[in-house]
Amino acid sequence: MSEKILPPRGTRDYAPEEMILKNRMFDIIRKVYESFGFVPLETPAFESWELLGAKGSGGEEIKNEIYYFKDKSGRELGLRFDLTAPLSRFVANNPNLVKPFKRYQIGRAWRYDRPQAGRFREFYQADVDIVGSSEPEAEAEVLAAGITALQELKIGEFYIKVNDRRILDALAVKQGLPEERIIEIFRSVDKLEKIGEEGVMQELKEKGFDLKKAKKFLNETNISGTNDKILAKLKKELPKNDAVTKLEKLIFLLEKYKVADKVKLDIKIARGLDYYTGPVFETIAVGNEDLGSIASGGRFDKLIGLYGGTDTPATGFSLGADRIFEIYKRQGKVPKRANSTELIIVNVTEETLDYAIEVSQKLRRQGINAETNLLKRNMKKQLDYANSKGIKYVAIVGENEKAKGTVTLKNMEKNEQKEVKVDDLTSILT
Amino acid sequence: MSEKILPPRGTRDYAPEEMILKNRMFDIIRKVYESFGFVPLETPAFESWELLGAKGSGGEEIKNEIYYFKDKSGRELGLRFDLTAPLSRFVANNPNLVKPFKRYQIGRAWRYDRPQAGRFREFYQADVDIVGSSEPEAEAEVLAAGITALQELKIGEFYIKVNDRRILDALAVKQGLPEERIIEIFRSVDKLEKIGEEGVMQELKEKGFDLKKAKKFLNETNISGTNDKILAKLKKELPKNDAVTKLEKLIFLLEKYKVADKVKLDIKIARGLDYYTGPVFETIAVGNEDLGSIASGGRFDKLIGLYGGTDTPATGFSLGADRIFEIYKRQGKVPKRANSTELIIVNVTEETLDYAIEVSQKLRRQGINAETNLLKRNMKKQLDYANSKGIKYVAIVGENEKAKGTVTLKNMEKNEQKEVKVDDLTSILT
Repeated sequence: MSEKILPPRGTRDYAPEEMILKNRMFDIIRKVYESFGFVPLETPAFESWELLGAKGSGGEEIKNEIYYFKDKSGRELGLRFDLTAPLSRFVANNPNLVKPFKRYQIGRAWRYDRPQAGRFREFYQADVDIVGSSEPEAEAEVLAAGITALQELKIGEFYIKVNDRRILDALAVKQGLPEERIIEIFRSVDKLEKIGEEGVMQELKEKGFDLKKAKKFLNETNISGTNDKILAKLKKELPKNDAVTKLEKLIFLLEKYKVADKVKLDIKIARGLDYYTGPVFETIAVGNEDLGSIASGGRFDKLIGLYGGTDTPATGFSLGADRIFEIYKRQGKVPKRANSTELIIVNVTEETLDYAIEVSQKLRRQGINAETNLLKRNMKKQLDYANSKGIKYVAIVGENEKAKGTVTLKNMEKNEQKEVKVDDLTSILT
Repeated sequence: MSEKILPPRGTRDYAPEEMILKNRMFDIIRKVYESFGFVPLETPAFESWELLGAKGSGGEEIKNEIYYFKDKSGRELGLRFDLTAPLSRFVANNPNLVKPFKRYQIGRAWRYDRPQAGRFREFYQADVDIVGSSEPEAEAEVLAAGITALQELKIGEFYIKVNDRRILDALAVKQGLPEERIIEIFRSVDKLEKIGEEGVMQELKEKGFDLKKAKKFLNETNISGTNDKILAKLKKELPKNDAVTKLEKLIFLLEKYKVADKVKLDIKIARGLDYYTGPVFETIAVGNEDLGSIASGGRFDKLIGLYGGTDTPATGFSLGADRIFEIYKRQGKVPKRANSTELIIVNVTEETLDYAIEVSQKLRRQGINAETNLLKRNMKKQLDYANSKGIKYVAIVGENEKAKGTVTLKNMEKNEQKEVKVDDLTSILT
């Protein structure tokens, strides 16, 4: 073989200069999530097809949208398409978890989508979920955690669209549309931004819905204005509706968290997945609307029961890490050079490499990231290597330094050098 | 569906109490690797079958040992079986990387093995590799980094067996065994500990090797004693052999790194994978020998060229994170309760939840991990929840505290409480 082999279509490598930034992203997210008391969980990359394809979860039709395969024993498996289904299985498998169970999970998921900007077939999600609470307090908390993370990540302006599926549900029923087929209406309505109102109407017509009723339904969802105005309108349209009451409480709580300014009620959003049962969320990054929702989620009160557990309410929010990374790229935040090295120790002769290694080990134990000569390079080539990595300081060691326990510390930017004791190096460098 | 669905055979969940420990493991490894100037890389979970199954890489026969599948367009793919093949592809795809290219990668790999203690079909590896150096300096560095990580991880006593395949090669040729079939002999010799000398002889017989020569060959590999003694014997047996000269240099360098006491030359080890071309490593955790090698690696000078790159020397070392985690479990290091929460704020009445949330947000911004009431629980139940999580401090807030900007801080262990100002909380807790 001599032809180049590339990563499979829809996947990508994260080169070191990108991965350093990505690790920083995940460290920030982890810290924020833990500040709310969320704890980490890890589940397998693949799950049984029985789980992924369950009706009310992915459904049979998801087989064409995931990586499905069989192991050597004929087990039907699939790469997970999100982190919500595995969480729900974990909770179903572990009925004695203390509730509320607040977990975060940062990991990959896979979908066989058409690749486009910021969208890959392999992608990272950073999820927070709260299991065991049916109160809007839970929605407020996952949104506050997610919003804080997005703020700390410094991605620029963004806002979160919030709706409750039951509001769409009630509005549809009010127009006389069939309740048992609401999910089909949701799927079409969810494409509103993609295919426009006309496209949605066309789809609904093909699905056999009464177009007049559908039109009236769509009109009803078309409420704009401030959150207060939308709530007032909804309270009039749907008096004593539990979803509306809880949305109002959610907005009140988000004000207490001081993040309400990031949230816009939007009665039109539905989300495509089957499993949502209440509030749903989508996030728009201003100026990066082409990326679609960069963080999404919602309530999934039926999923844990569906997977064999006791019916348990749950809600969550998921950051799309690759889309956020795409924003970083557009902001020019990916460093040009990947570097974790703080000091390169240059040995003047082959005979002083041993001393260079001893010095490097001493520095590492003191928290300095150090490199030595791995290629029997001469002094000039070692300095070239330091330059190509953009290293500010090198420590030059020859027989003189070896005998005296010193190094000649050279500032590569200023082109200045002076002899210093090894024991003084760390305090000079930090 | 109401039957429980479990994780697929050979995979497992990492529950929060385990995942907290695992994250700590990875943080330690990352820090050590970076102290040597290694930079992170991430590659896709699956690669093309063309790559995985290439002769000299996994080989056609590996199809039965991996998760192989096709995507909807018929592309042949497989979950990666290690992080070395993807690294080599990455280097082949990026010919302009500055050399030496020192990368680390922490990630999952998958093999369709028989599951056993500490061995899963889905497992984590933490690899360091140096690309671009054919000198023993590179082996010394990856071993020093790996050994330092294992020491920092505090897994107890361990030692690394080191050999060079070319020594086995030379000894086999010396006995008149066919050079082009050396890899088959390696595969059998690699099973020495598993199936014993008799088993190995039986296999070699079945493969059609001359038993007398094979026996003599095996005898020759049976050198024991100190590293110095083994080196002396090898220098006599194989004078001027490059592999022997480099092993001697490697031991010298490891002494300079002050980690040579962790390394034992062992001429019998070969490693099963096709792609090794020089030194090979295996790690035994004393008292946990049943786990097999907990960290392994070696030199793979042909792999990058095989994947379409310029021939580039490379060597590396890989920690088996799940086996190390198994040692932690045996050491009783997995915490009983998962917790990232430092303080729970208890609201006495529904009307003081808003104040509790405001206090919690203030604390989070000051670096305190805080939780509030997500379930409309009464005070007693909130205190029960704090107890069940093993939280030391709770902050109780009623109308009085809300009016004064204070909380009643309760030490749950001592059952003592006092009123403190919100602004003083962080300094009390840290």
